[in-house]
Amino acid sequence: MPRTIITAPPAPPCCPDLLTLALAGGPLSALRRLLDQHGTGSAAMAAGKEGWQAAGCTPAQCQALAKPAADDWARANAWLADDAHHLIGWGDPDYPSLLRDSPNPPLALFLAGNPTSLWQPAIAIVGSRMPSAGGRDIARDFASALAGHGLTIASGLAAGIDAAAHRAALACNGSTYAVIGTGPDLAYPRHHRQLQAQIAAAGAVISEYPPGTPPRSGQFPARNRLLAALALGTVVIEAAERSGALITARLASEAGREIFAVPGSIHNPMARGCHRLIREGATLVTHIDDILEGVANLAGELACALQTRLQTPISPVPSGQHPAVTPPDPDYQRLWDALGYDPTGMDLLIERTGLTAASLSSMLLLMELEGRVSSAHGRYTRT
Amino acid sequence: MPRTIITAPPAPPCCPDLLTLALAGGPLSALRRLLDQHGTGSAAMAAGKEGWQAAGCTPAQCQALAKPAADDWARANAWLADDAHHLIGWGDPDYPSLLRDSPNPPLALFLAGNPTSLWQPAIAIVGSRMPSAGGRDIARDFASALAGHGLTIASGLAAGIDAAAHRAALACNGSTYAVIGTGPDLAYPRHHRQLQAQIAAAGAVISEYPPGTPPRSGQFPARNRLLAALALGTVVIEAAERSGALITARLASEAGREIFAVPGSIHNPMARGCHRLIREGATLVTHIDDILEGVANLAGELACALQTRLQTPISPVPSGQHPAVTPPDPDYQRLWDALGYDPTGMDLLIERTGLTAASLSSMLLLMELEGRVSSAHGRYTRT
Repeated sequence: MPRTIITAPPAPPCCPDLLTLALAGGPLSALRRLLDQHGTGSAAMAAGKEGWQAAGCTPAQCQALAKPAADDWARANAWLADDAHHLIGWGDPDYPSLLRDSPNPPLALFLAGNPTSLWQPAIAIVGSRMPSAGGRDIARDFASALAGHGLTIASGLAAGIDAAAHRAALACNGSTYAVIGTGPDLAYPRHHRQLQAQIAAAGAVISEYPPGTPPRSGQFPARNRLLAALALGTVVIEAAERSGALITARLASEAGREIFAVPGSIHNPMARGCHRLIREGATLVTHIDDILEGVANLAGELACALQTRLQTPISPVPSGQHPAVTPPDPDYQRLWDALGYDPTGMDLLIERTGLTAASLSSMLLLMELEGRVSSAHGRYTRT
Repeated sequence: MPRTIITAPPAPPCCPDLLTLALAGGPLSALRRLLDQHGTGSAAMAAGKEGWQAAGCTPAQCQALAKPAADDWARANAWLADDAHHLIGWGDPDYPSLLRDSPNPPLALFLAGNPTSLWQPAIAIVGSRMPSAGGRDIARDFASALAGHGLTIASGLAAGIDAAAHRAALACNGSTYAVIGTGPDLAYPRHHRQLQAQIAAAGAVISEYPPGTPPRSGQFPARNRLLAALALGTVVIEAAERSGALITARLASEAGREIFAVPGSIHNPMARGCHRLIREGATLVTHIDDILEGVANLAGELACALQTRLQTPISPVPSGQHPAVTPPDPDYQRLWDALGYDPTGMDLLIERTGLTAASLSSMLLLMELEGRVSSAHGRYTRT
């Protein structure tokens, strides 16, 4: 049953109002402005037609806000009833800072899995849907090695390089998330349904499209913009001269992210896109150290933003949903106890704390910024 | 027999005096200044010790000028007695303009073959002495294709990439020259003696070291500086991370030349040097069009310099030596006759004129600059 939003009771829960806003479609800037002006989804909805118009909403948006499409609303609401499913809005403190600062950020993200994935330092690995065997191996090797350094592997769930990167991260118990161009309840390609479920269980599957949204070509470049913005940097491994991976790379560049491209033989047609990117200014990478070096500054900025986020009181969340970020103290205490004054490697810290490499990596970065920990050659010490 | 130069008769012939200067060794800047101040080799020699000191010559240089080493002088003089052997000095109008404008140009060049080679638009192709089969193929393919566009293939006569490039140019009747790090009468490696003779017959073998100079390690980086400066651009095809090819590339960059590097698989150790160059700013090349585009501006400048050179009266040359550049009119007339008002390709022009692609290319460039010819898609028309 659709709700007549204007007469709906105010938050809590605020999620239904945010969902109505997320389903309105049309220019995102007007909807973000509406949320900015009124602070919460419920206040934005309560502002009524006059308030919506004042924020710049189009007549179609006003219409959709006044009377959301019943089926769409019901389907999305049912999807969100699952504890593992989340809607993270523009005004939410959990909305990832890297995405907030990017061009044309989405009003809300539908997320299946762990919302803290969005705050983990991630590297996007993208490339051809039909890579060479060598390209697939490089995707696997880079993803494993980056995950081993505590980085989350972000990709687009496509066939080829994307799937190889996700699978490699899963295989080594690393963190991974997929940014997809359909609703979060659909898999594209269909035979990646199981992979999608594994990614949601180990990390997150993220979409700006509501449940039920089928694949449409225009949605994939839009998806690429999210992938590019969420990650610290984007690595392109094999791409034809005209390909989605190049679009992601261009969008990453527009979002101020570092682009990395893996070179190949001049006789490999799948290396052409990478060579083109390198000519246009992408960093040529032959080893993950090139990537780690290239994203170090932005990783520091993300750690600062995360620090601010952790100092913000947790926003009220609808009952039945997990708070996105739990207070960090017990984990930090465990890590502090596990650290000695002798340099200690990541493997030993994982063993001592029972925490994942991804979590430890973020926490150690924070503690380094606070001056409590120093690192050298991948080993950490109390200072 | 050594000559006591101070009492030697003045030019003509001027070559013996230039040879004495070329054999003096020591800082090149002082010897170039001496030639600049006095105009000719004979005047420079006639200036005597006071004049030599005034130009900044060291005591050892003054000693060598006053009393050249008898054996060295006799050996070089005997070598120069061959009609195909030349000594081209700093003050000579035939001294190539690209080399003149480079850092620390040599005082003189010992050249076996055709001195006009030095004025032909050339691309240096360099790389590993132990390339992969694929790298060798790229050297061959690029050299053939560039030679087919009328460019001279310059290299260093080394094993591997150098030899593959020279051989490919010879195989397609293109123009090629070798810049070597020994005296012009010696081959290094020795088993390239026959190749060296073929290069001298088809183009030129060039050295700043007098006949009889054996290979010494310090001479090869110095040789690389000449190779880099003489060519419009340097293409590196497969190079280990520390290699002579990288030195050539760095010197080419210091001489203001474009550096091109061919990428390869990240698993190919011979691609590492190229990847490093690309990271440092070299142009990534996958096709010779990238090279042609990259050197177009400098080729135009070289054509202007050549135009000036052709307007300069031919310098007096010792009897028995060929003038370096012959008056161009008959060849130009033949080319003009061969050109129609329909676009004509290089193959047809070669057939109609009997001239080589290399000569035609230089001439067509000149005629384009004069506004008499226009070109599009590799075909030429009268304007």
